[in-house]
Amino acid sequence: MPGSSQLLSRPDLDFLLHDWLGAGSLTARERFAEHSRETFDAVLDVCAEIAAERFAPHNKRNDTEEPRFDPAGGGRAVLHDEVRPALDALAGTGLLAATADAGVGGLQLPHVVRSACVAWFAAANISTWAYAFLTAANANLLLAHGSPEQVETWVRPMLEGRFHGTMCLSETQAGSSLADVTTRAEPQDDGSYRLTGTKMWISGGDHELGENIVHLVLAKIPGGPAGVKGISLFVVPKFLVGDDGTPGERNDVVLAGLNHKMGYRGTTNAVLNLGEGGHTPGGAPGAVGYLVGEPHRGLSYMFHMMNEARIGVGAGAAALGYTAYLKSLDYARTRPQGRPVAGRDPGQPQVPIVEHADVRRMLLAQKSYAEGALALVLYCGLLLDEQETDPDPAGRDRAGLLLDVLTPVAKSWPSQWCLAGNDLAIQVLGGYGYTREYDVEQHYRDNRLNPIHEGTHGIQGIDLLGRRTAARDGAGLDALDGLIAGTVARARAGGAEAKEYAEDLDAARARLVGVTRALHAEPDVTARLANASIHLEATGHVVLAWIWLEQLLAAGDRADDLGHGKRAAARYFFRYELPRTGPQFDLLAAVDRTTTDLDPSWL
Amino acid sequence: MPGSSQLLSRPDLDFLLHDWLGAGSLTARERFAEHSRETFDAVLDVCAEIAAERFAPHNKRNDTEEPRFDPAGGGRAVLHDEVRPALDALAGTGLLAATADAGVGGLQLPHVVRSACVAWFAAANISTWAYAFLTAANANLLLAHGSPEQVETWVRPMLEGRFHGTMCLSETQAGSSLADVTTRAEPQDDGSYRLTGTKMWISGGDHELGENIVHLVLAKIPGGPAGVKGISLFVVPKFLVGDDGTPGERNDVVLAGLNHKMGYRGTTNAVLNLGEGGHTPGGAPGAVGYLVGEPHRGLSYMFHMMNEARIGVGAGAAALGYTAYLKSLDYARTRPQGRPVAGRDPGQPQVPIVEHADVRRMLLAQKSYAEGALALVLYCGLLLDEQETDPDPAGRDRAGLLLDVLTPVAKSWPSQWCLAGNDLAIQVLGGYGYTREYDVEQHYRDNRLNPIHEGTHGIQGIDLLGRRTAARDGAGLDALDGLIAGTVARARAGGAEAKEYAEDLDAARARLVGVTRALHAEPDVTARLANASIHLEATGHVVLAWIWLEQLLAAGDRADDLGHGKRAAARYFFRYELPRTGPQFDLLAAVDRTTTDLDPSWL
Repeated sequence: MPGSSQLLSRPDLDFLLHDWLGAGSLTARERFAEHSRETFDAVLDVCAEIAAERFAPHNKRNDTEEPRFDPAGGGRAVLHDEVRPALDALAGTGLLAATADAGVGGLQLPHVVRSACVAWFAAANISTWAYAFLTAANANLLLAHGSPEQVETWVRPMLEGRFHGTMCLSETQAGSSLADVTTRAEPQDDGSYRLTGTKMWISGGDHELGENIVHLVLAKIPGGPAGVKGISLFVVPKFLVGDDGTPGERNDVVLAGLNHKMGYRGTTNAVLNLGEGGHTPGGAPGAVGYLVGEPHRGLSYMFHMMNEARIGVGAGAAALGYTAYLKSLDYARTRPQGRPVAGRDPGQPQVPIVEHADVRRMLLAQKSYAEGALALVLYCGLLLDEQETDPDPAGRDRAGLLLDVLTPVAKSWPSQWCLAGNDLAIQVLGGYGYTREYDVEQHYRDNRLNPIHEGTHGIQGIDLLGRRTAARDGAGLDALDGLIAGTVARARAGGAEAKEYAEDLDAARARLVGVTRALHAEPDVTARLANASIHLEATGHVVLAWIWLEQLLAAGDRADDLGHGKRAAARYFFRYELPRTGPQFDLLAAVDRTTTDLDPSWL
Repeated sequence: MPGSSQLLSRPDLDFLLHDWLGAGSLTARERFAEHSRETFDAVLDVCAEIAAERFAPHNKRNDTEEPRFDPAGGGRAVLHDEVRPALDALAGTGLLAATADAGVGGLQLPHVVRSACVAWFAAANISTWAYAFLTAANANLLLAHGSPEQVETWVRPMLEGRFHGTMCLSETQAGSSLADVTTRAEPQDDGSYRLTGTKMWISGGDHELGENIVHLVLAKIPGGPAGVKGISLFVVPKFLVGDDGTPGERNDVVLAGLNHKMGYRGTTNAVLNLGEGGHTPGGAPGAVGYLVGEPHRGLSYMFHMMNEARIGVGAGAAALGYTAYLKSLDYARTRPQGRPVAGRDPGQPQVPIVEHADVRRMLLAQKSYAEGALALVLYCGLLLDEQETDPDPAGRDRAGLLLDVLTPVAKSWPSQWCLAGNDLAIQVLGGYGYTREYDVEQHYRDNRLNPIHEGTHGIQGIDLLGRRTAARDGAGLDALDGLIAGTVARARAGGAEAKEYAEDLDAARARLVGVTRALHAEPDVTARLANASIHLEATGHVVLAWIWLEQLLAAGDRADDLGHGKRAAARYFFRYELPRTGPQFDLLAAVDRTTTDLDPSWL
C-alpha cells in the first residue's frame, strides 16, 4: 500500500490494539462472535488502502479548491469531483455501519476497531472524512433514539451512503450557549412540525454527494420550558421522501451562504435558513420536521451523539498529529543541513537534521503526542465496548464512569497537543514547512478547528471539573484514580524505567485527585471553576502519562525499533511533559483569583 | 485616527517610552539634540496615521491577492496596486532613514523611538512593512560597512524609497547552514565580480515597487577558506546603474519562481538565479556584483545586520500579537454568549464573553505576551542607543553585553509567545476566529514565519547558551544577572505585590544563572547544548518576568485603567507564566540526555 505509511504506523496500531488493549479477546463475546483477529486485520487493510488511494490524493485539492456557493436553484454548494467517489468507495465497504447491528446492515465491529479505522481516513483527508463522520454520527443517534420508522426511512439510506447527515445545533447568537436557540417548531395536525429559524456553522450543511441530506435540528416547541430544558430534536430532510423512501419535493431548508475557514476547507460549513419560504412545501410555512423521541428532551439525545463526536474530534486531531509527525520524520531523515555541535568541520558533509538534538526533541514530542493521543482514543473505544458488552454489570458501570471523565480529555488533549505537534512539524521542515508545497501547514490549519468545535477547551474544562468528576460523589474521579493506581502498582513490579515513572505518575495522580476534591469543596463556584481549563490541561497530561506508562509496560523488553521507540517516547513524556503539571497544580491548589478579580476595563 | 486603536495602544507606548524608559532624556545627548518629547510624539502620530490609513486597509488583500509570478520579461513578480502607494507614503516621512545620520538624509532618531514607529506598521500590515524593513536593514548594513561610493550609489536612493533592498543568504542546500553556500564570485579586472548561483527564500526578491532592487548577496570567492570563513558580501543590483546613478541595463539576476507561504503572503519570497545567462551584461558570464568591505568577512558584516533583523523579527511578532490582542478584546467586550457559572438563569440575558474567567485568562495571557514583548523590543532599542551614545564607556560596554544576550530572546520569545497569543485570539473568537472574515487567523499565519526566519528557535538557543552567555567568561550573563538583581532590589523596597514578585524573580534569576554556568562547565558539548532551546525558553520567561516587574514599578500606584491593567498583567505573568520555568530548570540541571541517547531508527 504505497502512501499509507505516511498516514499512520500500522505496526503501532497493531501494538496498541492487540499487544496493549487485547482487542482480539472481544471476539469471545456474543456480539463480536462473527469476528476474529483476521477480520479485524482485513478491515484495517481495507481502510489503509482506501485512505491512501482515494482520500489522500485530493487532500490538498480540498484546500485549494474550496467548495463554492452557487446561488442558482435557491443556493447550493459545489464541490470538486474527487470527494464523492472517495465517499462512495468508503460506503461500499460497509464501514459507515461499522458498529451497527447486523439487523440494520451493520458490521457489528467493536468500537475500538472502528476507532482505528477512522484514524486512517482522518489522517488522509480530514475534510472528506468529515462528511462520513457526520453521517455515521447522525445515524447512530437515530438508531439510539429514533422510531423504527425513522430508522427505516433515514438511517438505512445513510448507512448505505445514499443519504448524508448533519447536526444543526448552533445559531449566530447561540454557539456555546445552546440555551439560547431560537429556532421554532410548530406542531401540525399530521404529527409533523414546521420549523423556522437560521442555523450557523453547519458542517456538511449542503452538497450534492448523495440523494438527500438528513439534518438533525435542535429547536424549541412554543410553550416549552426556558433554556436547554425546552429544546427538542427534529429530523429535517433536504428533500421530503415519498412512501417508498425516494426523495421528492424540496423541503424549505435553504443554503444562505458558506463560511470560509482557515482550514478544513473541503468540508462545507453552511448557514442554513429554515422556513424562509424559498421552498415551502404545501401546508403551513416552515421547513417540515419530524420529532425525534419525546418533546423537550432533544439536548439529552444530542449529548449522546456529542459524547461520540467529542471523542471523534480527538481522533481526528490525533490522526492529523500522526501524519504530520510521520511526514516531518521522513523529512528529518533525508534533509541534510548543518553538522554536529561537537565537531563543525566544513570539510565534512552535512548530516541529516534528525542528528540534531533539537530536531529529535521536536520529533519525540510529536511522537509522544500523536501515539499517545491515538492510544487514548482507542482506549475510549474499548471503554465504549466494555460499557455495552462487558458481561459483568460492575465492569459496565466502571467503563461508563471512566468514559464519562475521559471524554473531555479525549476531545481536548489531542486537539491541543497534536496541534502543537503540527506546529513542531512545520518547525522541523523550517522554511519548507511554511510553504503550501508541503503538507504540514495544511494539517496545522485543518487541526486548528478541533479546539473549537464540539465545545471549546473552556467548556470542556468546566464540564470536567464542574460536572463529570463531581457527579455521583466523585465516582468518575475515583474510577480514574483506581485505574492509574492499578497501573502504578504493576509498574512498581517492573524494570528500572517503569519503577521510576511509576513514582512520578503516582505523585501526579495524588495531586490531581487531591486538587480536584479540594476544588469540588470550594464553596465559591466562580472561583472553583475559574481555572477549569488549567485543570483540564493538567488532567490530560496525567492521563497521557498513564497512557505512556501503560505502553511502556505493554512493550515489555521488546528489543526492536518499536519497543525502543515506545521507551524513548515514554522517557520523553515523563521528563519533558509530565513535570509541566507541577505549577498547574500549584495554581489550582491556591484557588487563584487573578481572572475573577479583574475589571474588564483594565484590559 | 480611526482604526489605529486596534493596532497598538498609544497610551501603552507612551507609558513604555516615557514613564518606564525615560526616552525623552536621550535628547540631552548631542546626537539627539534636535529632538524633544514633542518631535518623538509627532513622529509616532504620523506612524499611527499612515499605518491605519495606508497600511491596514490592504492587509487582507495582501493575503487574498498573493503576488503572482509572471514569466514574461525573464520572470517578474506582480503585486496588487495598494502596496506601492503605502510604501511611498512611508518613504515620504523620511522614516526609512529614521536613525541614520543627518548627513545622509537621516532623522537621527533614537533606536528606541524607531522601534515604536516600526510596531505601528508591522501591526497594520506586516507583509507590506517587510519591504521597508528589508530596505532599511540593507541600507544600515551598507552605512556601516560599505564604501562612501556605495553609500552614495545605493544607500541614498534606498533611504529615499526609490530603490529597495534584500538580503540574499540562503540557498536550497544552505538554509540554517550558511557554511554551505555555493554561490561563486569571480573577480574581474575592473575590480567588480561576476556571481553565479541560486538564492532561495529571498523576501522582496522581486517586485516593481521602485526603480531598482539592491541585493546583498553572500558568495564565495574561489580560493578562500572553507566554511563560513570564506564567505564574502556583494552588492548585486537588479539593474546596473550609470555614472549618474540612474538604473539602466538589466543585471543577470533572474526571478526563477515564487514560494507560496502559509501566511506573510504579501511579501514576495523568491528563488533568484544569478548568472544563468538570462540577462548577461557585457563581459564575463555572471551577475555583476560589487564587494562590500574586505573579502571573506561577509558573514561578520551580515551578522551586524542580522542582530538588527532578529530584533526586528521580534518586533514584528510583538506587533502581530498586540493587534490580535486588541481585536479579540474588542470582540470579547461586545459578543454576548452564555451566563455566569454562578447563576445560569436562561431568563436573564447573555453576558459579554469577557465576563467568563477563561476568556479573561486568554486575554490576560495575550496582554502579558504582547505588551511584554513590545516592552522587550523597545528596551533593546534603548540598549542600542546606550551602546552608541552613552557618554560613559562602561555604560556602552554594559549595553553591548546586555544587547548581545538579549538579542536571541528578543527574536524568539515574541515569535513563540505572541504566536501563542494569536492562537488564543482565535480561540476567544471561537468559530468566527477560525474564519477568514475576521483578522486573527491571518495574524496567526503571518506570525508563524517568525520562529523560522532569521534563525530558528533551535539556532537561537545554541547561540544563547553556547556563545553569547559564555563569551568573555560569561560577562553577558553577569550583566543580565546584575540587571535583574538591580530590579529585585528596587522591588523589595516597594509595595506588597512588588515584594512578592521580587522574591519569585530573584529565585528564578538565581536558577537561571546557576544552571547556565553549570552547563557552560559541562565538558560534553553535545549534552551541554542538547536542551539549548529549553534554556532559551526559560531564559525568555525570566527576562519577561523582569520586564513585568519593571512595568509594575513604573506604574507605581497609578489608579487608572492603565495602572490597574499593568498590575493585573504582572500578576498573571508571575502566577501563570514564570512558574513554567521550574520544570525547565530541573531538566536543564539534570543535563538530560533523552534526545542524544536516541537512535533515529526508533522514531
